[in-house]
Amino acid sequence: MPVHFLRNPLLCSVSHTATTLLCALPVLRATFVAPVRNIAFLHSPFNRFPSSLTPMATMKAAEIGEGGLADIGQARSSSPTASNADDASHGARGEKKPKWVLDLGISMARNNRDAHSRYIQLATVGFGSDDSSVIKPFVRTVVFRGFYNGMDPQDKHLLKIITDARSEKIPQLTLHPDAEIAWYFVKTREQYRLRGRVEIVTPTSKDRHLQAARKQQWNNLSESARAQFLWPYPKHPSPLDQDPSVFSPDIPPTLASAPPETFCLLLVRVSEVDHLDLKASPQRRTVHARRKGQKEGEEGDWEVTKVNP
Amino acid sequence: MPVHFLRNPLLCSVSHTATTLLCALPVLRATFVAPVRNIAFLHSPFNRFPSSLTPMATMKAAEIGEGGLADIGQARSSSPTASNADDASHGARGEKKPKWVLDLGISMARNNRDAHSRYIQLATVGFGSDDSSVIKPFVRTVVFRGFYNGMDPQDKHLLKIITDARSEKIPQLTLHPDAEIAWYFVKTREQYRLRGRVEIVTPTSKDRHLQAARKQQWNNLSESARAQFLWPYPKHPSPLDQDPSVFSPDIPPTLASAPPETFCLLLVRVSEVDHLDLKASPQRRTVHARRKGQKEGEEGDWEVTKVNP
Repeated sequence: MPVHFLRNPLLCSVSHTATTLLCALPVLRATFVAPVRNIAFLHSPFNRFPSSLTPMATMKAAEIGEGGLADIGQARSSSPTASNADDASHGARGEKKPKWVLDLGISMARNNRDAHSRYIQLATVGFGSDDSSVIKPFVRTVVFRGFYNGMDPQDKHLLKIITDARSEKIPQLTLHPDAEIAWYFVKTREQYRLRGRVEIVTPTSKDRHLQAARKQQWNNLSESARAQFLWPYPKHPSPLDQDPSVFSPDIPPTLASAPPETFCLLLVRVSEVDHLDLKASPQRRTVHARRKGQKEGEEGDWEVTKVNP
Repeated sequence: MPVHFLRNPLLCSVSHTATTLLCALPVLRATFVAPVRNIAFLHSPFNRFPSSLTPMATMKAAEIGEGGLADIGQARSSSPTASNADDASHGARGEKKPKWVLDLGISMARNNRDAHSRYIQLATVGFGSDDSSVIKPFVRTVVFRGFYNGMDPQDKHLLKIITDARSEKIPQLTLHPDAEIAWYFVKTREQYRLRGRVEIVTPTSKDRHLQAARKQQWNNLSESARAQFLWPYPKHPSPLDQDPSVFSPDIPPTLASAPPETFCLLLVRVSEVDHLDLKASPQRRTVHARRKGQKEGEEGDWEVTKVNP
């Protein structure tokens, strides 16, 4: 049974900041910690917009699998919004969430009419194609696929992203697993910058929980999104006489449930968050930094500091 | 006399790809190569939208200087759109533009109702705050301020960005001038990734054309945007008893025309462009790469290659 998403018209229609925060908090707390499976999509008259330019129209187009790449636009039929962004498969019930996770949840809820509020920019470092001795920055738009919560308390709230194993991200992240994500919310004029290390879940990853998460993510994809992992090698020159049918391959029955070798899951373990609120007066910037744990390799509590914008 | 911007309702209302391209090209060519000073803002009934969620409402709020940082939201009263994105101060009349500049112009024109279509993500590399021996990626949202065109033919179509001299971008770009920009257009589902080197125009830069460009950019800012360059040091901890008036300083008369020392202009000299069109079927990806020139240090022609998406 797929995870459906709950869109609360209350959260969408309230515009005043203070009121929204007051209204949103209990609702978010309830939906964030509640198991989200089997919640039916709530059709609501508040969701109707007149024009083809509306965010809702965009979101629906994306949801029904209008297509896209591994990075952008491969929307799942059930989008990760504030209500189900936290993967409940390992039971986050009642656990205390870091403040940045709660803040990000509120921002997602307040911007969830914009399909592109789930589009984030992932920056990595790697070597240039022209000069392999010079390290360079790379950045591309990807889709936020929700949070991964593992069994270990240290394994909570990892950001999920999917990618093609043939993408340039893979060698870059293999050599340099540090990444930064820029996430801008247009409606509420907020930016989050999330820094952390990226774990690549490949077909050969041994951890069975991670493999289960990779498989679940594959199952969440639409047919057209899956097909893209069977396309010809990305960024290789297109032969002029390329058969267009290679871009609409039939999915073999074996791939209906088991992901192909090209399908990878990326998990971003966040260690620092810079939250900038441009709508506040004066503007507000808050830095959330994860302290080092007492034991070697262990992570500590989160430290929250207000800084000048 | 400030540069006003022209919004052509024809370009906004036509949605079909082929028609838009056909209609847009001559209009764009005309507006791109024509001097854009003294063109009055064209009020149009096509620009009216009912809801507070509309892109137009957002754009107007930004234009009247609702505020923002050096990076995001410091919108100028005259926004760089397709019609005036190319700075005509050094006369680009009649010059042949690279294909990526034309393509980007069309994308800007087709998305110009969304104020955030000018928001781009700038990625750089630098050292981490916790471990200064490890190189890390950084990315933030900034506003595209139009193109800079210098006197030299090699100095055309440099992307303009403004920044505070106290920003972390400055030491990062000083040590590693390579950058990548991700630019996603929501309406037309296109992504441009622009790679290149960044020149920092500081208050002490000797080139008089660059200083003139920096001053012109300062003059284009709203009062509230200028005030932000007089704010306390960015990202330093906010004292709890901070006087809020430090975030709304009076601009001294001397700064009305001369930019303060904190105000820098960044110019991105693009050498590679990856243009991904997710709306096309099958999706299209085109790589534009600048060849090396025949002489040492000189830049050559642009090579355009269709590659697999």
